[in-house]
Amino acid sequence: MEKKIPYKIYLAENEIPTQWYNVRADMKNKPAPLLNPGTGQPLTLEELSPIFCEELCRQELDNDTAYFDIPEEIQNFYKMYRPSPLVRAYFLEKALGTPAKIYYKFEGNNTSGSHKLNSAIAQAYYAKKQGLKGVTTETGAGQWGTAMSMACAYFGLDCKVFMVKCSYEQKPFRREVMRTYGAQVTPSPSMTTNVGRKLLEEFPDTTGSLGCAISEAVEAAVSNEGYRYVLGSVLNQVLLHQTVIGLETKAALDKYGIKPDIIIGCAGGGSNLGGLISPFMGEKLRGEADYRIIAVEPASCPSFTRGKFAYDFCDTGMICPLAKMYTLGSQFIPSANHAGGLRFHGMSTILSQLYHDGLMEARAVEQTSVFEAAEMFARVEGTLPAPESSHAIRAAIDEALKCKETGEAKTIVFGLTGTGYFDLKAYESFNDGTMSDVIPTDGDIAASLAKLPEVK
Amino acid sequence: MEKKIPYKIYLAENEIPTQWYNVRADMKNKPAPLLNPGTGQPLTLEELSPIFCEELCRQELDNDTAYFDIPEEIQNFYKMYRPSPLVRAYFLEKALGTPAKIYYKFEGNNTSGSHKLNSAIAQAYYAKKQGLKGVTTETGAGQWGTAMSMACAYFGLDCKVFMVKCSYEQKPFRREVMRTYGAQVTPSPSMTTNVGRKLLEEFPDTTGSLGCAISEAVEAAVSNEGYRYVLGSVLNQVLLHQTVIGLETKAALDKYGIKPDIIIGCAGGGSNLGGLISPFMGEKLRGEADYRIIAVEPASCPSFTRGKFAYDFCDTGMICPLAKMYTLGSQFIPSANHAGGLRFHGMSTILSQLYHDGLMEARAVEQTSVFEAAEMFARVEGTLPAPESSHAIRAAIDEALKCKETGEAKTIVFGLTGTGYFDLKAYESFNDGTMSDVIPTDGDIAASLAKLPEVK
Repeated sequence: MEKKIPYKIYLAENEIPTQWYNVRADMKNKPAPLLNPGTGQPLTLEELSPIFCEELCRQELDNDTAYFDIPEEIQNFYKMYRPSPLVRAYFLEKALGTPAKIYYKFEGNNTSGSHKLNSAIAQAYYAKKQGLKGVTTETGAGQWGTAMSMACAYFGLDCKVFMVKCSYEQKPFRREVMRTYGAQVTPSPSMTTNVGRKLLEEFPDTTGSLGCAISEAVEAAVSNEGYRYVLGSVLNQVLLHQTVIGLETKAALDKYGIKPDIIIGCAGGGSNLGGLISPFMGEKLRGEADYRIIAVEPASCPSFTRGKFAYDFCDTGMICPLAKMYTLGSQFIPSANHAGGLRFHGMSTILSQLYHDGLMEARAVEQTSVFEAAEMFARVEGTLPAPESSHAIRAAIDEALKCKETGEAKTIVFGLTGTGYFDLKAYESFNDGTMSDVIPTDGDIAASLAKLPEVK
Repeated sequence: MEKKIPYKIYLAENEIPTQWYNVRADMKNKPAPLLNPGTGQPLTLEELSPIFCEELCRQELDNDTAYFDIPEEIQNFYKMYRPSPLVRAYFLEKALGTPAKIYYKFEGNNTSGSHKLNSAIAQAYYAKKQGLKGVTTETGAGQWGTAMSMACAYFGLDCKVFMVKCSYEQKPFRREVMRTYGAQVTPSPSMTTNVGRKLLEEFPDTTGSLGCAISEAVEAAVSNEGYRYVLGSVLNQVLLHQTVIGLETKAALDKYGIKPDIIIGCAGGGSNLGGLISPFMGEKLRGEADYRIIAVEPASCPSFTRGKFAYDFCDTGMICPLAKMYTLGSQFIPSANHAGGLRFHGMSTILSQLYHDGLMEARAVEQTSVFEAAEMFARVEGTLPAPESSHAIRAAIDEALKCKETGEAKTIVFGLTGTGYFDLKAYESFNDGTMSDVIPTDGDIAASLAKLPEVK
């Protein structure tokens, strides 16, 4: 007899994972290494460690170790907001009239509002362990900056956040959350760095860009004694930390003997998707199980579905290393889209390789249909989702509706990465009916891809 | 041997209470009845039921039934966001260096952001059951309006929210949450009611008041076929629904054999405090146990600590019934305070009677010291608290620090009613150092109390 599945499956505290899982260890085709843009050679530990914490550089470069112990201090912090619930979407199933069984792993029940905290606390821990004074980072909408501020507050580390100036001024709420957690939030470009000063001299009225904020944060890290730079997505280390999501999900499903058919996640830089799917992908790579895995991206920034698998800069400023990934070109400017966390031109190298090898699918969805799904989800499941997360909701609903047609009772699991409490401007434009979908033309993408760097 | 207490105690789904507890049944001195301001006579079911749903009127007037079954549909909805966690504040205890054991019941993990949803869903249910089309209500900062919108979306009820105009314009975020849940949000005063039209004719530039919004909502309820008015605090029925908080808290404590010494809650209209303490107060009233129970109110609006126990209007507009309560006078205008939910001149009649009978304590705390506690709590416990809830945090920290002095390992339980994600303007003024404390003079209060109505 099937066990009765509760609305929310919470693991016990002692069931929170104590190791992260490194999917690279099980990949036959390893993700391509980061390259030094100057030499075209793979980056070494020595080249990376002036920028990132040493232990994190090791995690970044390690394609072989399958499991990394989670340090006790990080495990303790996890208890503040983990385990996160795996929710059976009974209300949504009923509203859709689908025989599908839908589950979502909800990472939004913490003040940073998303899964970002999982990696932030790890990065802060290694900075502390290395005896650093603090870290620098950039933030656009502010989700990552908030998570990093919370993590730094816990370890008593200084946290310098460069926040894109237009966000700093127009989105004061996340800025204030960061300040409450003790972070020093600087509008970017600023007079505190050479990059910033130069830009302000040339363009005094600029409202900033993420590319510039990254440049300032990196400069601040290397020019301040005792600081390193931290980044919230794309990197292998970040995906590693985020596997706590997938490991908890799998443990919760296993507890009730549930085997998912389809696993869905939204994809920007890939941190949430990579974290959610890693343990399942591991089984798939080892031939132990099979799953359909679907990455969902915005139609306005479709790196998987319309990009090229090639080496490219990770940043618009072209100062970061080259990564082999699905990219729209580092100079690609996505049209305005409210899912700020998905407006990245590239993609995690791990996920890019897996997609290239046919181990996962990808689809692009349009913003208005994403918000229709978000609204429906909010009304029946009670949680107002982040625009980013709502991409996964859209795909989950679409798959559940297919089941309704075919009568199949498939089990669908998706990642609900966060809440939309700081995205109400987006909801306002949806509620007002003024939201639109702007999709790049083939010409736009070709023009941007024409500028891909040549790799020696 | 003492059981190891986890960071978060979650009850299982089948341990969510199935009955509300009516503390009035155990009170020797019953709360004084609501009076009709015209006749000075206790309000009858017949007089109340054109305004409120019939079943809710019954709950309002029933001082004898100790337990009310929670209808199955409400129990189902509870599963969306309940049980809420009872958190052991290990991080806070460590930061304070106190031997005290601190617990908090966290009601903020839902999109309405607070405990208000517990009563909203009950009120929506009874409206639906009565075959109504919808409900009307008012909202200031928007917490109650959001909760009511969510509850109405669940039952497919129309929800007309009159939102104080200045909040409607200055706090568009909660407004958009309500709209996303399908509510019709009208800035008050509006042209849709006689009260509103009259006021706008006289004062075309008014930015509205809660008193006026209440009047509009009541008018809209009685003048629209198939509508009733709903209210989020003060009333006996609301305290009854909110006992789900206290019952869950007690069940979680009992599970681990924990007996609290001190129970603390913030007090505005009294809904959260009443809900949290009811089962404990019941034991106290029946002589089965003893607890110190502390109500915490803002020094800017100190109804318990500086008000008078007397009959007064529940609203500034003086159209609502008279209630016997601790009041500062219905014409008292509290100085600007960021805890909007605590800026009520009166107090629940149940709590007023209990306080009058010496069964609980009260203290008033100043805003800046409340935000100091909030900031500390956010940094060590990870959750950014609502300004209202932070009043309870302040008192809990103060009691824990007393324990540090005396070396006593007391067990302190407090209610963390909600999150501060929509209160970042308040945090901004605290972060900027521009927050101040304005406390009414004795003269202010005396002048306001001089206008108390005469009861025939």
